[in-house]
Amino acid sequence: MFLIEPLTQAYNSQLQAKIDDKTKPLGALGDLERLAKQLCQIQLTKKLAQQSNTSSETIALTDFTAQIKQPELIVFAGDHGVAAEGVSIAPSEVTSQMVANFAYGGAAINVFCRQLGWQMTVVDAGTLISPESGLAVVSQRLGDITQAINLAPAMSRSQVEQGFSYAKALITEKVNNGCDLIAFGEMGIGNTTVAAAIMSAIMNLPASETVGKGTGVTDEVVIRKQQVVAQALTLHTQQLADPYDLLASIGGFEIVQITGAMLAAAEQKIAVVVDGFICTAAALVAIKINPNIKEYLIFAHCSGEQGHQKMLTYLGVKPLLNLGLRLGEGTGAALSLPLLQAAVGFYNEMASFSQAAVTNVVDNKKAS
Amino acid sequence: MFLIEPLTQAYNSQLQAKIDDKTKPLGALGDLERLAKQLCQIQLTKKLAQQSNTSSETIALTDFTAQIKQPELIVFAGDHGVAAEGVSIAPSEVTSQMVANFAYGGAAINVFCRQLGWQMTVVDAGTLISPESGLAVVSQRLGDITQAINLAPAMSRSQVEQGFSYAKALITEKVNNGCDLIAFGEMGIGNTTVAAAIMSAIMNLPASETVGKGTGVTDEVVIRKQQVVAQALTLHTQQLADPYDLLASIGGFEIVQITGAMLAAAEQKIAVVVDGFICTAAALVAIKINPNIKEYLIFAHCSGEQGHQKMLTYLGVKPLLNLGLRLGEGTGAALSLPLLQAAVGFYNEMASFSQAAVTNVVDNKKAS
Repeated sequence: MFLIEPLTQAYNSQLQAKIDDKTKPLGALGDLERLAKQLCQIQLTKKLAQQSNTSSETIALTDFTAQIKQPELIVFAGDHGVAAEGVSIAPSEVTSQMVANFAYGGAAINVFCRQLGWQMTVVDAGTLISPESGLAVVSQRLGDITQAINLAPAMSRSQVEQGFSYAKALITEKVNNGCDLIAFGEMGIGNTTVAAAIMSAIMNLPASETVGKGTGVTDEVVIRKQQVVAQALTLHTQQLADPYDLLASIGGFEIVQITGAMLAAAEQKIAVVVDGFICTAAALVAIKINPNIKEYLIFAHCSGEQGHQKMLTYLGVKPLLNLGLRLGEGTGAALSLPLLQAAVGFYNEMASFSQAAVTNVVDNKKAS
Repeated sequence: MFLIEPLTQAYNSQLQAKIDDKTKPLGALGDLERLAKQLCQIQLTKKLAQQSNTSSETIALTDFTAQIKQPELIVFAGDHGVAAEGVSIAPSEVTSQMVANFAYGGAAINVFCRQLGWQMTVVDAGTLISPESGLAVVSQRLGDITQAINLAPAMSRSQVEQGFSYAKALITEKVNNGCDLIAFGEMGIGNTTVAAAIMSAIMNLPASETVGKGTGVTDEVVIRKQQVVAQALTLHTQQLADPYDLLASIGGFEIVQITGAMLAAAEQKIAVVVDGFICTAAALVAIKINPNIKEYLIFAHCSGEQGHQKMLTYLGVKPLLNLGLRLGEGTGAALSLPLLQAAVGFYNEMASFSQAAVTNVVDNKKAS
């Protein structure tokens, strides 16, 4: 369903040489240096694919600049039947209320997108109360609310496929309109429970190691969340090996569409900025569907939700930010944009040693 | 010499209530919430001082918005006699070459300042080769180069006082011209050795625990740096208790001016963004001179230099970024600006629960 090309490795030594020739000690820009390389590799892979129909098959790196011209962030909202199982005191109605808040521009993610230059889109992936007509919300509804994952499959396999199809069409439209960097956010009362179940299933961990406090429940509720996750894992144990069946059994409408959107973006050779616990759960499923996606993912932050650091460790990745955020909505992903721009900026704009007439001592591996 | 007012505590509960009424779970914006409070407290303290001549002595918080309208970053460059003692293979000439690179706009700090909206100023605090005339470099020279700290006092006490006087005049000018947030960067071959000596003196640690690889020296050079720092601490042992004598003995021209500039900014009730190892060493001295400054400091990042995390732990502060940067120039401070703007932005712009008609369940300490 998703054809994702591995990143080109053809320019690695040239990219490294260009970075090392900037007027700074070797490696002194730390994580921004690997980020610059990753973004260049993704964009070179895209450029090569676009050229493959023409005669010229290589790219002169002197003519190549990395770019982030049109970053877009899509917030997917979905409701979860499991919210009524005592895993959350906030009622599912809050999901729809927050969708309206997004549409009116009053949520944290709106503020950060405005400040940092993300184009933001809100998608109703399936919420209890449909948004009022006239609100700027894209309708990609898979239903009103999933079934409670501890009692039944969250949705049917055909709903998963419909979700992937919606997501792919949306991403194709965004990329055709110029989007060159994409991030996802989510809203859905109950979705930390669902993400913990997905984490348990993929990382083979008991509920006690994956369930956290979400956005702030009591210890009693945490215990109830653990019971619900354990129950769901037992109920659907035969369905957890296949990632599509896994999503149908213990997924959510927004998580399905984020998974599909991540895969579709990587298929289009666009870098994907991964937000917190929920989005990383979607990334775990996406990697299971097609491991090639991983090279296209940029992990924005480590959230305050207890399972998130474990997910990042499991994936062997270091996030860019660690601010104790536990809000979702894509806020961590949004806040990482200036760091991506800084990586692109130093790669494109910094002077080389010879340009700036600065003595380069790094060949001797020494400087201070 | 510096009169620094403690921050007002009068609005703490109102500030917290306003933050808690934003449409998000309690505390879900993590470190950005404490950052918003700190910035508000600093700006309220300034506002109160400005009003103290008039009749109205209080501020209605409903009328108050936090702001970052004119962030400025000043890079101070200085040369160090200790560079010739085998602590750095890069020759002192590189300091002046990089000053020219700053003036021409080709260094990492130029790229980041342009991208993120900092107004940048370069100050020659005393470098081996004076900048060519015509370059946009502010001359506040305390000499050509300090004496090697392991052999003699770096400078005289009157040079320290001159440096503080230069710094204070520059900060006053910036603030009078509208600067409302300030950060400092540095360039100086040999200055990680000097910063390690300051760290040893103030934190009472042996050189083995404060000396690191700087921007990338060999293990042999690290051992030499440790010897030099140990020698300096022994030579000046009688001078280390008084912070002015400490700066004269084991400081540097750029470090003296950064220390003075931090104190002057806090005196003007402006938030100070603290960069990496060198700038935090300056902050340690500034806090010794006037502990009230600490509330005005925002620690931008933890650098890759080994001693920096220990300094931050000693101060009991959590930095905003941790990207393994070890470049100096103020690059870590520069990169933190979007997070400060995000803190101000959510405080000013996010909707409250009642404005957005979102059900607030946080009074029950529960949400998910």
